[in-house]
Amino acid sequence: MPETLAPHPRLVIIGAGFAGLTLARALNRAPLQITLLDRRNHHLFQPLLYQVATASLSPADIAWPIRKVLSRQRNARVLLGEAVRIDAARRVVVLTDGEVPYDILALCAGVSHSYFGHEQWAPLAPGLKSVEDAVEIRRRFLLAFEAAEREEDPAARRARLTFIVVGGGPTGVELAGAMIEIARRAIPADFRSIDTASARIVLVEGSPRLLAAYPPDLSARAKRDLEQLGVEIILGRHVTAIDERGVSIGDERIEARNVLWAAGVAAGPLAATIGPATDRAGRLGVNPDLTLPDHPEIFVLGDLAVHIDPRTGLPVPGIAPAAMQMARHAARVIRSRAAGSRATGVPALGHTSANHPQVSELPFTYHDKGMLATIGRARAVGVIGSLHLRGLLAWLLWAVVHISYLISARSRIVVMYQWAWEYLLFQRGARLIIGDTNLHLRDPEPPL
Amino acid sequence: MPETLAPHPRLVIIGAGFAGLTLARALNRAPLQITLLDRRNHHLFQPLLYQVATASLSPADIAWPIRKVLSRQRNARVLLGEAVRIDAARRVVVLTDGEVPYDILALCAGVSHSYFGHEQWAPLAPGLKSVEDAVEIRRRFLLAFEAAEREEDPAARRARLTFIVVGGGPTGVELAGAMIEIARRAIPADFRSIDTASARIVLVEGSPRLLAAYPPDLSARAKRDLEQLGVEIILGRHVTAIDERGVSIGDERIEARNVLWAAGVAAGPLAATIGPATDRAGRLGVNPDLTLPDHPEIFVLGDLAVHIDPRTGLPVPGIAPAAMQMARHAARVIRSRAAGSRATGVPALGHTSANHPQVSELPFTYHDKGMLATIGRARAVGVIGSLHLRGLLAWLLWAVVHISYLISARSRIVVMYQWAWEYLLFQRGARLIIGDTNLHLRDPEPPL
Repeated sequence: MPETLAPHPRLVIIGAGFAGLTLARALNRAPLQITLLDRRNHHLFQPLLYQVATASLSPADIAWPIRKVLSRQRNARVLLGEAVRIDAARRVVVLTDGEVPYDILALCAGVSHSYFGHEQWAPLAPGLKSVEDAVEIRRRFLLAFEAAEREEDPAARRARLTFIVVGGGPTGVELAGAMIEIARRAIPADFRSIDTASARIVLVEGSPRLLAAYPPDLSARAKRDLEQLGVEIILGRHVTAIDERGVSIGDERIEARNVLWAAGVAAGPLAATIGPATDRAGRLGVNPDLTLPDHPEIFVLGDLAVHIDPRTGLPVPGIAPAAMQMARHAARVIRSRAAGSRATGVPALGHTSANHPQVSELPFTYHDKGMLATIGRARAVGVIGSLHLRGLLAWLLWAVVHISYLISARSRIVVMYQWAWEYLLFQRGARLIIGDTNLHLRDPEPPL
Repeated sequence: MPETLAPHPRLVIIGAGFAGLTLARALNRAPLQITLLDRRNHHLFQPLLYQVATASLSPADIAWPIRKVLSRQRNARVLLGEAVRIDAARRVVVLTDGEVPYDILALCAGVSHSYFGHEQWAPLAPGLKSVEDAVEIRRRFLLAFEAAEREEDPAARRARLTFIVVGGGPTGVELAGAMIEIARRAIPADFRSIDTASARIVLVEGSPRLLAAYPPDLSARAKRDLEQLGVEIILGRHVTAIDERGVSIGDERIEARNVLWAAGVAAGPLAATIGPATDRAGRLGVNPDLTLPDHPEIFVLGDLAVHIDPRTGLPVPGIAPAAMQMARHAARVIRSRAAGSRATGVPALGHTSANHPQVSELPFTYHDKGMLATIGRARAVGVIGSLHLRGLLAWLLWAVVHISYLISARSRIVVMYQWAWEYLLFQRGARLIIGDTNLHLRDPEPPL
């Protein structure tokens, strides 16, 4: 773009998750040309993604077209594309099929799960990050009961009805809780040959307790609640092998045809293209104002950033509220720079640290509003300040908070309606197998 | 199964569409062992499938687990599996992974679209029969605008924004109407580089008029309505070639990157395994009581059957109400045989025609309740007896009829809600691209 008209600086945001979308919206009417780049056309409300995987909600209930969200924001455009490399020297984001130049870059690409060096487990134990993942996990989960219904060998049937969830964080806890409720409450009457209530759901966590980010009493409560629902919990032991037939957990072998992965954190390959990672997960350390060291023009926001809160000395957690706070902070820094550059007549933004003395005046601090994790019907745990919540109260609060954070009013009503229906009738609204329905009954080593 | 206990006869139903599911439900409490076999886990409300393809509804709104529908019917079980062959001599349905024996068979496997011998067009011009088809068509439709937004060459952009719908029956008319409304009303504000309202939607029909099953005045009305909405209509000419770049219609060439197929009728390969087809589409002719000639134990129901109504001399149309009527008729025949066999002491059902003098006493006659086809917002056409309906009235009736035929109360409310939202705000609730988002911008011959 020619510089003759002194156009507004170009802000490119990579990733339309909580951080990226919040940043774009927070800069509404700012004197910027914003490009929001994502390889998907939708913003996903990830905290409820496990409900798509467990047949409660439809993808469209928790995913909205990014374009629609930014439809009226005239300083923003949306681009569907995949960033493969950041060329910080040329200030260009390289896509699979083009380039996007920037003056300011916000890297909000998020993280995925980690197989801890066992990438060969990925097809055997899918993780839950995208709508596609959720639809695939739902397919496998529902198909397991279908295969068991047709399987005549008792041991094989048992393995079909055994589900291993690896990882005892919020996602693992939520998946295990939802799965046992479906097996025991929602579907037993629908099958003739099997007792779906006999399904084993095994939750495996390598550390000594579930929900490690929570206080120990709530971890214990989550364990008790899950066990009351019927989930088997294995703590302090790691999965050492996964194959088509089952899982090894230390010396123990469990025959299981269904394994789900909800453990670990790993940055995608894009982050590594702008500098060395700060931690083993590949995340990037940032300055107090959330910019990258030596790159005041590059912000890293959301769970891809490693940020130690100066007040508490603790890392900011990789959760949606933190990502949104980071984004709002970055918006303030960017607006303040724009105002400063207009006042001082310094034209460009973010060229060197020295140009921006105001940077260090705006360190990010995280305001911990609390955390909530749901376990099952009328069961959840939560922390708000020094308050520890559990049971029905925590669950109601969880439901209200999650409904209120959904982007569209349409979705809020649909999700509320689906939950009410489910709560009253123990039914699931989206028990849909999409894709391959081959049960591989005769296949000795099925590529499930 | 041992015959010593004189067990109830085994009825196997292949296909859980309108015919198969209606038959199973109509035989609730009948002295039968019913097996309902389908290769999918859900019954699909096909009349609204185009609304999934055009981002109005989610798959779960119009698809329900077959198991759930038959959950309380104790004489029925549901089997997920794919029938590949019917061995009428052994009275066995051969699956990909097993066999299911029957005493009575109901073949309700439906039909698909036909490429009229041009099977190589299938990947270029997907049809709309399953949830997977609808999600794929939605993906292509939404991705076309994304690609156009990033495409810089005007001719290439034009081809991206040109959509050809082949087939002027109800599905083609509904698809074309919904697509033009999205391009012109729902999404223009969401794009910055393109004017989505400039998208061309071309509906091609080989016969001289749209909606051939309708009276000519309504065909003309449908054409006028679509043209008012902005759809281009080509009548009386056939598509002669399709490639990655466009479509040939006789001598005319249209550069178009998006082709949808909504033409032709073809039975699947299963039908051919029990006898020669009656028509070129591979459908099966049936006796007046809907059984297969020489096979009184085999019923063919739904649009796979060719049945000439004895009263009108016309073939029964391949639509949902006809399939449901056929199923209820077959249920009466089966119940009457069961009652007869109990009264006369003849133990087995349907072994030969001679055993069942009552068969010919129950010929099927079709009660034509009318037809409705929707064109767009507040536009539809319909025939009820001698009454020809059009415009808002037809559209309201269409909406009421379709809502009332949805199986679950949950779906009825969700669909009504989504339609109200869409009607008032011109928005689409499910603008979700699931799957590959590669735009193939640099790919000269993309395998789209």
